[in-house]
Amino acid sequence: MVEIKEGFSKLEHRYLFQEIARKVADFQKESPGTDIIRMGIGDVTLPLVPAVIRAMHAAVEDMASKESFHGYGPEQGYDWLREAIVRGDYAPRGIDVSADEIFISDGAKSDLGNILDLFSRNNSVGITNPVYPVYVDTNVIDGREIHFIDCSAANGFTGDIPSRPLDLVYLCYPNNPTGAVITREKLEKWVAYARDCGALILYDSAYEAYIRDPEIPHSIYEIPGAKDCALEFRSFSKTAGFTGIRCGYTVIPGGLMGLNALWNRRQGCKFNGASYISQRGALAVYTPEGRAQIQENIDYYLGNAAILREGLERAGLEASGGENAPYVWARTPEGADDWAFFDLLLRKAGIVVTPGSGFGTAGRGFFRLTAFADRARTKEAMERLVALCAG
Amino acid sequence: MVEIKEGFSKLEHRYLFQEIARKVADFQKESPGTDIIRMGIGDVTLPLVPAVIRAMHAAVEDMASKESFHGYGPEQGYDWLREAIVRGDYAPRGIDVSADEIFISDGAKSDLGNILDLFSRNNSVGITNPVYPVYVDTNVIDGREIHFIDCSAANGFTGDIPSRPLDLVYLCYPNNPTGAVITREKLEKWVAYARDCGALILYDSAYEAYIRDPEIPHSIYEIPGAKDCALEFRSFSKTAGFTGIRCGYTVIPGGLMGLNALWNRRQGCKFNGASYISQRGALAVYTPEGRAQIQENIDYYLGNAAILREGLERAGLEASGGENAPYVWARTPEGADDWAFFDLLLRKAGIVVTPGSGFGTAGRGFFRLTAFADRARTKEAMERLVALCAG
Repeated sequence: MVEIKEGFSKLEHRYLFQEIARKVADFQKESPGTDIIRMGIGDVTLPLVPAVIRAMHAAVEDMASKESFHGYGPEQGYDWLREAIVRGDYAPRGIDVSADEIFISDGAKSDLGNILDLFSRNNSVGITNPVYPVYVDTNVIDGREIHFIDCSAANGFTGDIPSRPLDLVYLCYPNNPTGAVITREKLEKWVAYARDCGALILYDSAYEAYIRDPEIPHSIYEIPGAKDCALEFRSFSKTAGFTGIRCGYTVIPGGLMGLNALWNRRQGCKFNGASYISQRGALAVYTPEGRAQIQENIDYYLGNAAILREGLERAGLEASGGENAPYVWARTPEGADDWAFFDLLLRKAGIVVTPGSGFGTAGRGFFRLTAFADRARTKEAMERLVALCAG
Repeated sequence: MVEIKEGFSKLEHRYLFQEIARKVADFQKESPGTDIIRMGIGDVTLPLVPAVIRAMHAAVEDMASKESFHGYGPEQGYDWLREAIVRGDYAPRGIDVSADEIFISDGAKSDLGNILDLFSRNNSVGITNPVYPVYVDTNVIDGREIHFIDCSAANGFTGDIPSRPLDLVYLCYPNNPTGAVITREKLEKWVAYARDCGALILYDSAYEAYIRDPEIPHSIYEIPGAKDCALEFRSFSKTAGFTGIRCGYTVIPGGLMGLNALWNRRQGCKFNGASYISQRGALAVYTPEGRAQIQENIDYYLGNAAILREGLERAGLEASGGENAPYVWARTPEGADDWAFFDLLLRKAGIVVTPGSGFGTAGRGFFRLTAFADRARTKEAMERLVALCAG
């Protein structure tokens, strides 16, 4: 008789964003005419930039003739992309990362989930709270012991350094869901902690392109010693609008716990490389033209974030984030339950947000807004919110 | 201190195809002038068909404007593709599979590896021998007990039904590496066995498009009762040349052990859908034009397989497969060790094959040839083989 992995029975019934999608679909069935503004799931809305489109058309054309056809690519990704990442994302910051420490994939979510294939279930896990649910769910499935690290306005949403040793620690900055960033000094403390107790930091920097403050680190490897204790996960999804294209990468330092060779082995037997077309598109992000074009899009989204901050203030709601991140984190009015406020916003204002408690207990009484909607729709949503809160 | 999953230490050092690639690269360094014909890794060489190219250009263009842009797709795949698969691959054979039983992914290798996320390590596993190494390696990593089911010419490379109950049983027909197919009668026996002992069959039918014999089943669901005991894994890689595009799918019947909901949950937290462009390309495979075009390519590869069979015969070597499959399985001359014969073929004839023992102990003394090379190169390889064996 087949035995299901025990952890599944300990999982919340639905993945958060599937739950939200269901609630929205149900409401649309009830009120088919309602004009809904979606600021729930963090999905981009601007089209891909011309440099990426041109590169992907060329890649499709490569596949049309025998001479330029590409079959299986390397499971680790094409060298031309790995090298462009080194030159584009790391070398300019003086970070010593080599191409064979970079593994291209179909996205950071896959890597953040699949990386756990390397670790025994005996490892203890530190997870900030509130948090992107993937870190929690994947560890619950595997049956690992999770220690939550509470994040609040009091600690700048960066959590206090744990007093006990942990094995795997997830950090995500700029943060999803709070939009908080981490200072160099605080990140140094995390690295010192990890080196001290032998922990491994899983550093999710999917939103680093949104950092505007020159003092804020973009990569954990800007901190000396981090290559001895941290992996870094990045994505083209929010940087270049690749949510439907699928491409991301993970940095696994060569000397770190043998993990580089282990991940190579894992990918060799459970992955066949990211799409050639996606990788060619990602390469275009590193051309001067591509860089300039994606920068415009990021500026646009950060402009939306400023509108969100300003709207929330007008509505009399406390908010943070959105200055170096595409997410704004707001407190519900008068301590309202966040799922109840989610329903209210959906039903009375036609706005979809993400309830804070969907990201963990420390998210109770908060909600997340994303800056990825259309400019006019973002403004419209804030007008509706202001009206609702005034009414 | 971080603890690595114990199974990694029990794994063979390298993934088979990485090992072959290294040997070939070493030889090329030694003898840079040698003209090498690659019949080792099962990778296609014909370009994508025009219908797929056109669909992917259109999909790239969709991504270029805000109105037609696609961000995150459903983790399960787009409904239009799931429905096309039902209409194209199942309904015509009278098989009752519904769209919500189909999960689109970035390829069958990913799914075959990741599906193990659902199962506890206590499950016993039955694996035919010789076999695609992915089934073995992924279970070794997880620490499951593996029972090998020997396949040989005597049992038509379909293995004897085990006398003891097993939990998970992998079957792959048309088979990689032997190119053998399974009769309806034999597959009925496997289904009866699984139903009887509560086993789950993981049926890999990645090569079903190569079946020419009308008596041979294309899907395990052609067997009554299979929906109560089997998952089916399929790929566009060998059907439509998608090895570099990345798209495949897995069928998980709704009523089967709750696995449909579990896989949905797993994909919801570790996967973000296959690329929109890849899925649009896959959809074109189901148009009348796309169908006809990919059929031509499959015929071409089967033509190569016939040339391989004929060449092996001229060389005096015993061979099977290649009639309903893109692989031909041959015995080394005079009982030679297959890695030694691999080296001989590489060094004396410039031909890359796959040594049979790379697929398991029952593959010792055999080697695999793939039909995916160019026609002229396939003929050239056979001339070289005949000359080598005559010399």
